[in-house]
Amino acid sequence: MSDMTTRRLRAGIVGGGRGAFIGTVHRIAAELDGQAQLTAGALSSDPTTARESARAWYLARSYDSYEQMALTEAKLDDGIDFVIVATPNHLHYAVAKAFIEAGIHVICDKPLAYAVSEAEEMVRLEALGGPLLALTHNYTGYPLVRQARELVRSGELGELRKVLVEYNQDWLMMPLERQGNKQAEWRTDPARAGVSCCVADIGTHAAQLVEFITNQKITAVCAELTTFVAGRQLEDDANILLRLEGSTRGTLVCSQIACGEENNLNIRLYGSTGGLEWHQQEPNTLIFKPPASDPWRYLRTARGGLGISAQSATRMPAGHPEGYLEAFAVIYRNFIKDIRRVAAGAVPKRDYPSAQEGLRGLRFVDATVRSAQRGTRWENV
Amino acid sequence: MSDMTTRRLRAGIVGGGRGAFIGTVHRIAAELDGQAQLTAGALSSDPTTARESARAWYLARSYDSYEQMALTEAKLDDGIDFVIVATPNHLHYAVAKAFIEAGIHVICDKPLAYAVSEAEEMVRLEALGGPLLALTHNYTGYPLVRQARELVRSGELGELRKVLVEYNQDWLMMPLERQGNKQAEWRTDPARAGVSCCVADIGTHAAQLVEFITNQKITAVCAELTTFVAGRQLEDDANILLRLEGSTRGTLVCSQIACGEENNLNIRLYGSTGGLEWHQQEPNTLIFKPPASDPWRYLRTARGGLGISAQSATRMPAGHPEGYLEAFAVIYRNFIKDIRRVAAGAVPKRDYPSAQEGLRGLRFVDATVRSAQRGTRWENV
Amino acid sequence: MSDMTTRRLRAGIVGGGRGAFIGTVHRIAAELDGQAQLTAGALSSDPTTARESARAWYLARSYDSYEQMALTEAKLDDGIDFVIVATPNHLHYAVAKAFIEAGIHVICDKPLAYAVSEAEEMVRLEALGGPLLALTHNYTGYPLVRQARELVRSGELGELRKVLVEYNQDWLMMPLERQGNKQAEWRTDPARAGVSCCVADIGTHAAQLVEFITNQKITAVCAELTTFVAGRQLEDDANILLRLEGSTRGTLVCSQIACGEENNLNIRLYGSTGGLEWHQQEPNTLIFKPPASDPWRYLRTARGGLGISAQSATRMPAGHPEGYLEAFAVIYRNFIKDIRRVAAGAVPKRDYPSAQEGLRGLRFVDATVRSAQRGTRWENV
Amino acid sequence: MSDMTTRRLRAGIVGGGRGAFIGTVHRIAAELDGQAQLTAGALSSDPTTARESARAWYLARSYDSYEQMALTEAKLDDGIDFVIVATPNHLHYAVAKAFIEAGIHVICDKPLAYAVSEAEEMVRLEALGGPLLALTHNYTGYPLVRQARELVRSGELGELRKVLVEYNQDWLMMPLERQGNKQAEWRTDPARAGVSCCVADIGTHAAQLVEFITNQKITAVCAELTTFVAGRQLEDDANILLRLEGSTRGTLVCSQIACGEENNLNIRLYGSTGGLEWHQQEPNTLIFKPPASDPWRYLRTARGGLGISAQSATRMPAGHPEGYLEAFAVIYRNFIKDIRRVAAGAVPKRDYPSAQEGLRGLRFVDATVRSAQRGTRWENV
Repeated sequence: MSDMTTRRLRAGIVGGGRGAFIGTVHRIAAELDGQAQLTAGALSSDPTTARESARAWYLARSYDSYEQMALTEAKLDDGIDFVIVATPNHLHYAVAKAFIEAGIHVICDKPLAYAVSEAEEMVRLEALGGPLLALTHNYTGYPLVRQARELVRSGELGELRKVLVEYNQDWLMMPLERQGNKQAEWRTDPARAGVSCCVADIGTHAAQLVEFITNQKITAVCAELTTFVAGRQLEDDANILLRLEGSTRGTLVCSQIACGEENNLNIRLYGSTGGLEWHQQEPNTLIFKPPASDPWRYLRTARGGLGISAQSATRMPAGHPEGYLEAFAVIYRNFIKDIRRVAAGAVPKRDYPSAQEGLRGLRFVDATVRSAQRGTRWENV
Repeated sequence: MSDMTTRRLRAGIVGGGRGAFIGTVHRIAAELDGQAQLTAGALSSDPTTARESARAWYLARSYDSYEQMALTEAKLDDGIDFVIVATPNHLHYAVAKAFIEAGIHVICDKPLAYAVSEAEEMVRLEALGGPLLALTHNYTGYPLVRQARELVRSGELGELRKVLVEYNQDWLMMPLERQGNKQAEWRTDPARAGVSCCVADIGTHAAQLVEFITNQKITAVCAELTTFVAGRQLEDDANILLRLEGSTRGTLVCSQIACGEENNLNIRLYGSTGGLEWHQQEPNTLIFKPPASDPWRYLRTARGGLGISAQSATRMPAGHPEGYLEAFAVIYRNFIKDIRRVAAGAVPKRDYPSAQEGLRGLRFVDATVRSAQRGTRWENV
Repeated sequence: MSDMTTRRLRAGIVGGGRGAFIGTVHRIAAELDGQAQLTAGALSSDPTTARESARAWYLARSYDSYEQMALTEAKLDDGIDFVIVATPNHLHYAVAKAFIEAGIHVICDKPLAYAVSEAEEMVRLEALGGPLLALTHNYTGYPLVRQARELVRSGELGELRKVLVEYNQDWLMMPLERQGNKQAEWRTDPARAGVSCCVADIGTHAAQLVEFITNQKITAVCAELTTFVAGRQLEDDANILLRLEGSTRGTLVCSQIACGEENNLNIRLYGSTGGLEWHQQEPNTLIFKPPASDPWRYLRTARGGLGISAQSATRMPAGHPEGYLEAFAVIYRNFIKDIRRVAAGAVPKRDYPSAQEGLRGLRFVDATVRSAQRGTRWENV
Repeated sequence: MSDMTTRRLRAGIVGGGRGAFIGTVHRIAAELDGQAQLTAGALSSDPTTARESARAWYLARSYDSYEQMALTEAKLDDGIDFVIVATPNHLHYAVAKAFIEAGIHVICDKPLAYAVSEAEEMVRLEALGGPLLALTHNYTGYPLVRQARELVRSGELGELRKVLVEYNQDWLMMPLERQGNKQAEWRTDPARAGVSCCVADIGTHAAQLVEFITNQKITAVCAELTTFVAGRQLEDDANILLRLEGSTRGTLVCSQIACGEENNLNIRLYGSTGGLEWHQQEPNTLIFKPPASDPWRYLRTARGGLGISAQSATRMPAGHPEGYLEAFAVIYRNFIKDIRRVAAGAVPKRDYPSAQEGLRGLRFVDATVRSAQRGTRWENV
């Protein structure tokens, strides 16, 4: 694999076969910049589905189990350079561990793991300095999310005061898990999803977005979790008060029963000299809000006034809207660049979410569930 | 005053003189429909300002004190039919009481009073069945706020689940109270504003809007109040978890330090079969959000698909935007109609906020402050 | 009337009685600032309607004819100071002339007259220097329209290149004139409306807005007029190419059959160094578009960054939306100030549309109709 | 190539090398669905650039000329299945012809050719029934553009009356062609771009969008073309009146000097029973406007209420914004499916723009230029 700095990389994937939307997302995102190609996969726990899915994607090699895949690929001359983990949550840890131990770089769907203890183990594994580990908190791949972070860092907002973040959907407003929807089944099943449904699935995206943009940690949460759909075992809605480092205060609202909402992740920040607003569903606009003496400014993807971080995450000229897949592919782009760096003996830049963020996400979920269980009181993250 | 059903009514005003924005609002709103005219006033505690203000508004009679005004007007053949209370909060009760005892109808700026005990006394006074008492929770005058209430009542949203209400401004993001701004001075002064600044001033508008639209009471709050501007005595920011009657949950966010925000009151509701969204700054659009099978519908002031409640609060054809003053004037319109009803011996309809809402507002403030003082725990309203 | 500089003015109105929406608009706009009060009227050609309308508005004096009203009011000690002309188009000239000749100031609904010749005569009358004449091209009363003009004047847009103006409605998309709608009847009747329906009614607003903001005259038009509703005698839709002074080019699109459009007047301007965009239906936002190096700026009514012209047309703090009536009332405000100036022996400022603009409007209509009749060719205005 | 129905296809590309934005667009769009991979290319007329570009994209084979490439690839066992033409306009015809004659399918950037005569020849070539020819009028790949067409076809808008289409940019507002910008050089050079700059480049997109959605042909145009930037040889701005089949009327406005506009393609349609509005820069929303009795409905990509045509052009769940690249890739998706159909002996569906649309585009440009040259008069397309 000595040519890893000059050829297209080979990727493998575990999970994500036929019927799993997220598998397609990973495939497109991984290949979008033409720097990697899916070559091998263990696409399903069902062998037939696995093979048919592999054939549909023209993969060179299909495996029935991820263990076998890790062992075999590690020995091949033209084996995969990295693996994508796209299974349900409860398998993330085992799959990632198998490939890391086989010396193969890992990019993992979020959450990092099923439980905090697993995530801690993955942080430990990553710290050994072997294969790289990336976590697809994909919303940080949007150019204007990066611009938001840069504006906060450069002091344009002054001292940060208030953060309002929301992630509202409606796809679980009916009891889909009792109507044959596979994803709804495992998302609402404690055995596979963990202690939380809504907060773990989308609340963590919102929390990670807050920490990414503000460069401040969420230190404590005070939460009310609600299950609105009768018979459901995990919460489908959450209202959370936030305390961040410094004196920043805020709220995190997430819901999967918010009738009419598609995938409405949005964030607003208010500092002592400026504010920001961004909406994932119209991701190519970022509003900067100065004090009353000046009008709002609408920053736009690929247009003037953006910093290097946003520019380098952009592929098209302004007015050619980039979307979810392009942002997702920015995570892959930076991860692949790091793989090449490491192959060339250089230090990785780690310009993508990794195990630390994953661990923080799980701790955020735990603190939130704990707060709710204890009658809505402040719990440290 | 036997002609009160056929002539233009005569209004008096206490407070609101030169320099007080809210005085102008009341004057325009009271007169907008041509059913009342300002005739007398005690426009300022400063006699010179009072007289000059009265002259600028062409008032027939100017008084140096509201006590004198109440006594005198009650005896005149062509005395005022109702009085507008537009003073700072701590005087509301005394002024309103003086006029009610003089037999004159009262329309009072919110909050109803300085303290819960005063508000309770006003509820008692109102219950005596003498002069009418209206409270200018003006945002309920918007046609589409009324439409929202009608949609909830008619069951279009199904069982209500979640309410998100916000009221964000930035006018106190700097220490204006130390820079000569009169309103900032009394708003942040416990002696004149009471136990709260931000929640009392604008949070109560948001809370009242929630109860008006949902027809559910806020039963408990769990709040964090923050003072971001150094040296300020009262909070300038609040994040509040809400519990409503039934199983409705939500958040109420209000701030006076949200850099870049003008007067951003907005509300979103989510029920089991529909959602709603409304923004005060673009008040002529109300979004109805059905489940995923159908697209969002944008209801518009004076356009098709509106109920009688919205229609009767509209003056212009669709596309001729109505704003803050027109909504404020709807409160006056309904109040004046009630005065005529009472004069004609009929039963008043009370289609405007009154002492009960005012008392609820003060209790909401008290519960919120208590929750924050006790470390952010649930407190009943 | 020697006290005209210190008292509230007395206004009369011709037309606009019961059922005529525009009468209410004029009444509210005239009285909004508390500087004038409707006192007398000849509110309808039907004497009963006239009297009932006058009673509903608490007018002191009602007339059966405008001729009688002009003669009588001119002689009264407390006669009206100005008259509002709110009749259908074909009467504007005669009514205005009667009051001007009686020495009474006139404020006239647009268009100024039925035909160019009448408008020319009114320009001549106005030039005599007697009573003032204002034309309610009300959209120029919006604060941000004034700001747009100021930005163009101050050179912020550089050399103007392109203007796109639209005024789309749908109220005539069905044959309302054959279904008993009074306004539709006269608007589509050549005998009362003149040579044009859509262009005369709303196209003139758009054309006047262009000239007001750009300070450039429309020099030539190239037009296609269409009648989409079968049996209608006048056009209900127009697409017009524009040439302005200098090398500015543009289009003016107006329609009364644009299904779904309420009162969608909007304008965009593009110069060599900046662009502008404004929408009447959300009138409190004006977008300034710099070249690509900078983001768009959203100017807001009553917020920072506005010039004196916009500020002086504003009554509320930012975020308290002002609408159609408030803008209309700005025309009245400036007209009334001029009446007081004249009464005080000062020179009027004429900061409102007047006979010249009215004459230009009629010439614009004539050139447009001529262009269409001659097969869509350039015709000078 | 007998396996063409089961394997990933091999694509070649002519033009589009290093520095050419459109090359990257084609590469990503061609490969996005994992159904094709770029394998060979003649990426630049400069041999060094060609080779370096090929290496950067990991192409198996690089050519110095397209003629050589066509001849060679046609003979290889694993030669390309189709070629992408991404050169400047004046080479489209020659390149496409070379590959068609070599029996290789062609997908060509728009415009189809440099002149009408060339386009006519390509229509003739396509009609021979040999290799397929697709034209990347990419905006028709957006799901909601397809939905718009379906709504028109299904009669939801009734009889179409009015079409307003715009395509405004600002990238040529300065004389970039004299500042070293390569694309600006050839776009404004009659020898390479043809008789038109702005209309040929973007006006044709707008015209094609109109015909695609309405299923009506533009029959006549009446145009004013303007060159605002001094010294430029071709127009940079156009205002055009449109006549369509039936009695539909409209305007087409396009500009490359519209300060502040990025890539603002938008379209509005008005029929006798409904209207539509779509903006390319926020492509995941399509507004349907019923008559006044009902509110506007906001259709959304991947959400309920969409027809099969829109659904089949969607890859992500609702709220995961799809953009320019995804739409572009829909053209490729349908083209590749057709290649497989043909390889399997089936009849192609031709669900993408082709030579006929390309010829119409060139005739539209010619008629527009002719109209402007003859003093803005109606010219048949």
